[in-house]
Amino acid sequence: MEETFVPFRGIKNDLKGRLMCYKQDWSGGFKAGFRILAPTTYIFFASAIPVISFGEQLERDTDGVLTAVQTLASTALCGVIHSIIGGQPLLILGVAEPTVIMYTFMFDFVKDRPDMGRDKFLAWTGWVCVWTAGLLFLLSILGACSIINRFTRVAGELFGLLIAMLFMQQAIKGLVEEFRIPHNENLKSTQFLPSWRFANGMFALVLSFGLLLTALRSRKARSWRYGTGWLRSFIADYGVPLMVLIWTALSYIPTRDVPKGIPRRLFSPNPWSPGAYENWTVDMLNVPVVYIIGAFIPATMIAVLYYFDHSIASQLAQQKEFNLRKPSSYHYDLLLLGFLTLLCGLIGVPPANGVIPQSPMHTKSLATLKHQLLRNRLVATARKSMSKNASLGQLYGNMQEAYQQMQTPLVYQEPSARGLYELKESTVQAATCSGNIDAPLDETLFDIEKEIDDLLPVEVKEQRLSNLLQAAMVGGCVAAMPILKRIPTSVLWGYFAFMAIESLPGNQFWERILLLFTAPSRRYKVLEEQHATFVETVPFKTIAIFTVFQTVYLLVCFGLTWIPIAGVMFPLMIMLLVPVRQYFLPKFFKGAHLYDLDAAEYEEAPALPFNLATETELGNGTSYAGDGEILDEVITRSRGEFRHTSSPKVTSSTATPENDPRSHRSPRLSSSPRLGELRGERSPRARGSHSPMTGEPRQSNLGKSPLNPASD
Amino acid sequence: MEETFVPFRGIKNDLKGRLMCYKQDWSGGFKAGFRILAPTTYIFFASAIPVISFGEQLERDTDGVLTAVQTLASTALCGVIHSIIGGQPLLILGVAEPTVIMYTFMFDFVKDRPDMGRDKFLAWTGWVCVWTAGLLFLLSILGACSIINRFTRVAGELFGLLIAMLFMQQAIKGLVEEFRIPHNENLKSTQFLPSWRFANGMFALVLSFGLLLTALRSRKARSWRYGTGWLRSFIADYGVPLMVLIWTALSYIPTRDVPKGIPRRLFSPNPWSPGAYENWTVDMLNVPVVYIIGAFIPATMIAVLYYFDHSIASQLAQQKEFNLRKPSSYHYDLLLLGFLTLLCGLIGVPPANGVIPQSPMHTKSLATLKHQLLRNRLVATARKSMSKNASLGQLYGNMQEAYQQMQTPLVYQEPSARGLYELKESTVQAATCSGNIDAPLDETLFDIEKEIDDLLPVEVKEQRLSNLLQAAMVGGCVAAMPILKRIPTSVLWGYFAFMAIESLPGNQFWERILLLFTAPSRRYKVLEEQHATFVETVPFKTIAIFTVFQTVYLLVCFGLTWIPIAGVMFPLMIMLLVPVRQYFLPKFFKGAHLYDLDAAEYEEAPALPFNLATETELGNGTSYAGDGEILDEVITRSRGEFRHTSSPKVTSSTATPENDPRSHRSPRLSSSPRLGELRGERSPRARGSHSPMTGEPRQSNLGKSPLNPASD
Repeated sequence: MEETFVPFRGIKNDLKGRLMCYKQDWSGGFKAGFRILAPTTYIFFASAIPVISFGEQLERDTDGVLTAVQTLASTALCGVIHSIIGGQPLLILGVAEPTVIMYTFMFDFVKDRPDMGRDKFLAWTGWVCVWTAGLLFLLSILGACSIINRFTRVAGELFGLLIAMLFMQQAIKGLVEEFRIPHNENLKSTQFLPSWRFANGMFALVLSFGLLLTALRSRKARSWRYGTGWLRSFIADYGVPLMVLIWTALSYIPTRDVPKGIPRRLFSPNPWSPGAYENWTVDMLNVPVVYIIGAFIPATMIAVLYYFDHSIASQLAQQKEFNLRKPSSYHYDLLLLGFLTLLCGLIGVPPANGVIPQSPMHTKSLATLKHQLLRNRLVATARKSMSKNASLGQLYGNMQEAYQQMQTPLVYQEPSARGLYELKESTVQAATCSGNIDAPLDETLFDIEKEIDDLLPVEVKEQRLSNLLQAAMVGGCVAAMPILKRIPTSVLWGYFAFMAIESLPGNQFWERILLLFTAPSRRYKVLEEQHATFVETVPFKTIAIFTVFQTVYLLVCFGLTWIPIAGVMFPLMIMLLVPVRQYFLPKFFKGAHLYDLDAAEYEEAPALPFNLATETELGNGTSYAGDGEILDEVITRSRGEFRHTSSPKVTSSTATPENDPRSHRSPRLSSSPRLGELRGERSPRARGSHSPMTGEPRQSNLGKSPLNPASD
Repeated sequence: MEETFVPFRGIKNDLKGRLMCYKQDWSGGFKAGFRILAPTTYIFFASAIPVISFGEQLERDTDGVLTAVQTLASTALCGVIHSIIGGQPLLILGVAEPTVIMYTFMFDFVKDRPDMGRDKFLAWTGWVCVWTAGLLFLLSILGACSIINRFTRVAGELFGLLIAMLFMQQAIKGLVEEFRIPHNENLKSTQFLPSWRFANGMFALVLSFGLLLTALRSRKARSWRYGTGWLRSFIADYGVPLMVLIWTALSYIPTRDVPKGIPRRLFSPNPWSPGAYENWTVDMLNVPVVYIIGAFIPATMIAVLYYFDHSIASQLAQQKEFNLRKPSSYHYDLLLLGFLTLLCGLIGVPPANGVIPQSPMHTKSLATLKHQLLRNRLVATARKSMSKNASLGQLYGNMQEAYQQMQTPLVYQEPSARGLYELKESTVQAATCSGNIDAPLDETLFDIEKEIDDLLPVEVKEQRLSNLLQAAMVGGCVAAMPILKRIPTSVLWGYFAFMAIESLPGNQFWERILLLFTAPSRRYKVLEEQHATFVETVPFKTIAIFTVFQTVYLLVCFGLTWIPIAGVMFPLMIMLLVPVRQYFLPKFFKGAHLYDLDAAEYEEAPALPFNLATETELGNGTSYAGDGEILDEVITRSRGEFRHTSSPKVTSSTATPENDPRSHRSPRLSSSPRLGELRGERSPRARGSHSPMTGEPRQSNLGKSPLNPASD
C-alpha cells in the first residue's frame, strides 16, 4: 500500500482495486459449493460466542439497557453490510471488548448525573458515535491507514499474542467465577450453597477442559490414521461446533441429580421481552448541548481504538504467508467503518469493528478450503491421466492444466508453473533416489497423494460469501436465543481458551518464544520442519534477545490492560512500537538480522518502471493495465517476493539496497509456507529440505538471476 | 524350552542355566548405578498401587481379617525371596485379583458355618495353601510348564489385553462409585449429602483424568522438543510417580471449602492397630479334618490359576522382541512359587504370584534403561574419536568396541557385529545419497545422535537388583501407611487406566485391531513406521478375519469374568486356545499366514548336532560348554532366529520343514524391533525401510544361506 496522505487518493485506489475483483468475489464463493459452509460455521461460532459473552457482560454493566440481543444485531448488521460493500471480505466484524469497556465507562458516567440518567444513555452514546464517525471519515480521507505499513510483523504479532492472552485470561477468570456466587443473583438459591458451588466449579472444569481438548484434537482430524476420508474431513471441518453441541448435551446428563442452576448456563433475556426492544428509537435531540460537545472526548478514544483494531485485524488477515492475490483496502474500509459506526449509534446498538483473532482464523480456514479444492481436483486429474496410461510427463502436464484452471480467472496472470513446481521436483527426486523413475504410475499417484498435502503452496479462497453467511447466521442467533441459552458458561470458557490456543501457530513471535525453550541439541528438529529463515541466518543469541525484548513489551502491554479505563488505550502502547522498531531497534540489532526477524516493507526497494515489472511479474501473478501508481501497489503487494535492483528511495537508515544482497534474490520458487505449518501441524520432512516460513528465498539462491522466474 | 515331562529334568535345566548368570545378575545391576532407580520406582508404583487397592477390597470383603497390610507384606516377602533365589528376575510377583476373589469366596464359605467361623478363616486358608503348594510342586516336577511353549502369541496377547480391559473396568467402576455412597459407611456424614457426593464425583473425574493424561504425556518426555536433556530424562523416568504426588498435592487445594471426606482417599488401618497383627500366628491344627480335606477343592482351582498366571506373566516378560539373552526358568519358578505359597499360608497372608502387566512393564523399562546406557556410551565414544580426528572407519571401530564392552561378559559370545550394523548401514547410506561420504565428522556425529535412538536394537538390562529394590520398597509401604492414606482413590483409578493404556503398545493383537479401523488409503502410514511382517505378507482380509476371531474370543472371556465365582476360572478359557490354535485354526487359515500372524515355536525345526550349532550360533550369542541337551534349550531360546535344515520332529501337522521355506532363513541382522515402537512411539522412518516387528527376517532374505551369520 502506497504511503500517501493526499486526500481521497487512498480510498480511490482501494475502490479501483477491489472493484476489479468484485464479481469474482461472488462467483468464486458460489463455485465452492456446499464446502463453503465449513469455514462459515467455524467463523460463525468464533464470532457469535464472544459476542454473546460480551452481551452478557454489557447487560450486567448497563443494568439491562444493552443486552446480547443488541450486540448480536450489531455484529450481524455490520457484518452483512461489510461483506456486501466492504473492501476486504476476509475481515470479520464484531463487537469487541474495548467497545464494551467504553460503553460501560460511559454508562457509569451518565447514570448518576441528574440531567442525564439511564434513559438518555443511548442518546448520548449516539452522539459519541456521531463524533467517532466524523473522526474516522477524517482519518480515512487523509490516508492515515498508510501508516499501517509501518506496523511490521513485530507489532502485529505482539498484538495478536496479546489478544490471545486476554482471551485466555477471560477463560480462566470465568472458570474461577464458577466456584463463586455471581453478581446480582439470588443468594438463597440452592445452587449457591457452598456444596453446590463447589460441584458446579468442578463440573465447569470437566466441561471446559473437555471441550478444549476435544476441539483441539478435532482440528487435526485430517491427519488421523483412523476413520474414512469423508469422516475425517467432516470432523476436521465441523468438529468444533460439533464439540460445543456434544458437551452441551453431556452437561444435561446429571440433570436429575442436581439443582436447576448447575451447570450455569448463558443467561440471556428473551428477545421478545420489552427490555430488549425499547432501544430501537433513540432520541438524540434531548441531550443537553454541553454533553453533546463533551461526547467528543470518548469519541476520540474510540476512534483511535477503532482505527487501530480495524486496520490491524485487516493486516493480520492478510499476512504474507497467505499468498493473497487480491489487493488490500484499508482506507476504504475505515471509511465504511465510519458509516457503520454512525448507523449503529443512531439505531442504539454498540458498533462493531474488525476483530482479532477471528479475522486471521477466517483466512486460515479459507486456506484449508482452497487446499482441499485444489487437492481433490489434482488427484482426480492424476487418476484420470493414469487410467489413460499417460506417461509421467503427460501426467504433470495435465495436473498443471487443472491447476491453472483452478486459479482466479481475471486479468491476473497465473503463476501456473510455481504451484506444482515443488510437487514435481519432490516426486521426481524421490523417484530418482530410489531408482524408480520408471515405476508404474500407481506408485507415482501414491506418492502424489502423500506429498500433495505438503507441497501445494498456501492459497486462500478469497470471496465474500463466507463472510455474508456467517454474519447472517449471527443475526439468526437473535431468534435462536432459547437454544443458545442452554450452552453452559463453562463451555464458553473452554471455547475462549480454544480460540486463544488456535491463534498461536503461525505466529512467529510465539514460535520464537518456544525456540528459547528448545534444548540446543533439539534445535535440529526445528530445522527439519517448517521454519522461518531467521532460524538459519540469525545467530541464536540475537533471536533470544529480540524475543525477550518483545516478550517484555508484551507483558507491559498486558499489565496495562489491568488499569481500569485508561487500560483500554493499550493499543497506543503498540503504536509506540512503530517508532521503536524504526529508530530504536536498529541501534541494537544488525539490519540484516532485523530484516530476517521482522521484514518491514519500507525496507524493500520500491518500484521498477512498468514494462520491466510486467516481465518479472510473469511468475508472480499480479499485473495491471498500465498505471505506474498501481505498480507501487503491485510491488508491495508482492510482499517481498521480488527485490528489484533499481536505486531505491531509502526510507530506512539501515538498508542500503545497492549493497544489500537481498536485492538480488531470485523469485520465490520453492519457499512457500506450507498449510500444515499454518495449522500448527508439524510435518517432518525428509532431512535436508528446509523451507523458510516467511517466504524469503534461501541465501543459497544469491547467485541466481532475478529475471528468470520460470526456470523450472 | 524343551518339552519334557521327565521328572525333575525341567527344574534341573533351569537351575543350571540360571546359575551361570547368577553372578552377573547382581554385578550388572550394581554397575548400572543410580540409574537403576528409574525402572525401580516405576515398577514399585505399578506394584504397590494395585496391591493396596486389592487390600482395601479384601478388607471390605473379609470384615477386616485381611487388610492392605497383609497384601503388601505378602507382595514384599515373595518379591524379595523371588528376586534373590528365583529363576527369572524379570518376573514381578504380587497379590493378584484372582487371589482376592478366591479368598473372598472362601471367607463367605466359612464365616457362617458353625464349626468354622471367622476365627478359623486363616487357618483354613492355610490348609488350602498347603494343598496348593503340593499341587504346584507336582506340576513343576512333572514339567507341566513345558506346555507354555504352546501358548503362542495369540494366547499371551489375548490374556494381556484381557487384563488391560479388567484394569480399565476397575477404573471406570471406581469412578462411578465416587458418585455413590460406599458400603459400610456412615450414611449421615456430610460428605455423603447428594451435593457433596456430586462434587466428589466431579472432583474425582478431574483428578483421575488429570493423572491419566499427564502420566501418559510424561512417558514420552524424551522426545519432547523443549527442556534440557536431563530434565526430559528425569520426567520420562520419574514422571509417573511424580504425577501421582502432584495430583495428590493438588487434591488438597480446596481443603478449606470442602468437608473432610472430599476427595475420598485410601482408607487403610493403622498398621499398629491390633486388627492387623493378630493374624501372624495361625493355628492350623484346630480346623476339623473334613474341612482340611475339603480345602483340596479350592486348592485345585488356585493351583491351576497360579500355574497359568505365573507362567504366562513370565512368558510375556520374555517376549521375542526383547532380545533377552539369559535363559528362561519356568519349572524352577513354579517350584519356588509352591514354597512361597506354603510360606504365605502358614503366616496367614494371601499368596503372591507373577503379575501382568507389571512383568512386561518391568522388562520394557529395563530395555529403556539399557538403551540409555548404550546410547550414552556410544555417543561419548564417538565424540572422543572425533576429538582425536579419527576417520569414519576408525570411528565405527571404536564404537563397535565400546558396544562389545557393554555386553554381558560371560561365556556368551557377543553378537558384536549385529548391534551396530544398522546404524552403520543407515548412516553410510544416507551419506552416499547426499554425496557426503567425505563430510566432516561433525555431521556424522550429528547423524549418529539423531539416528541412534532408532537404530540401536532393543536390549534389556537383565539383573536382579531392580526386582529386589522394588519389593523392598513395597515392604516399606507398610511403614509408610499414613502417607499412603492421603492418596485420593480417584488418583488410583486414573493410575489403573494409565496401566491399562501403557500395556497396549507392543501388543500385536491391539495393533491389528487398530489396523482394522485404518482407512485403506492410510495403511501406507503403517508401512512407513515400525510394523510386523504380517502387514506386508498376509492379505488384509485374512488379517481382518483373524483379528475378529481373536476379538470375539476376547469378549467371551471378558464376559465370563462377570460370572461370580466361576468366572475366576477364565484362564481355562484361554488354555482352551492352545488346542484351538493347534488344531482348529489351521483348518481356516493358511499355514504361512498363521505363521506370520502368530509364530508358534513348535513349528520351528528342532536342534542341529552340537558342533554345527556352535558355528551357526557364533552370531547369536548363546553357547554352552558341550551338552547336547542344552542345545535344545539353545535352539528354542534363540526364539526363532535360526531355522535349521535337519529333519525335524514334526509336532505340528502344518509345517513340513523340508519344504518350509522358513527353514532357510538367514540370521536376523537387520530386523530387530525398535525401542520406540515398544514404547508406543511412532517414529516415522524414511520411506522404504521397513523393519518387521516380530523379528522374523523378511521374505526377501529367503535366498540367503543361514550359515553366514557375520555377513555384514
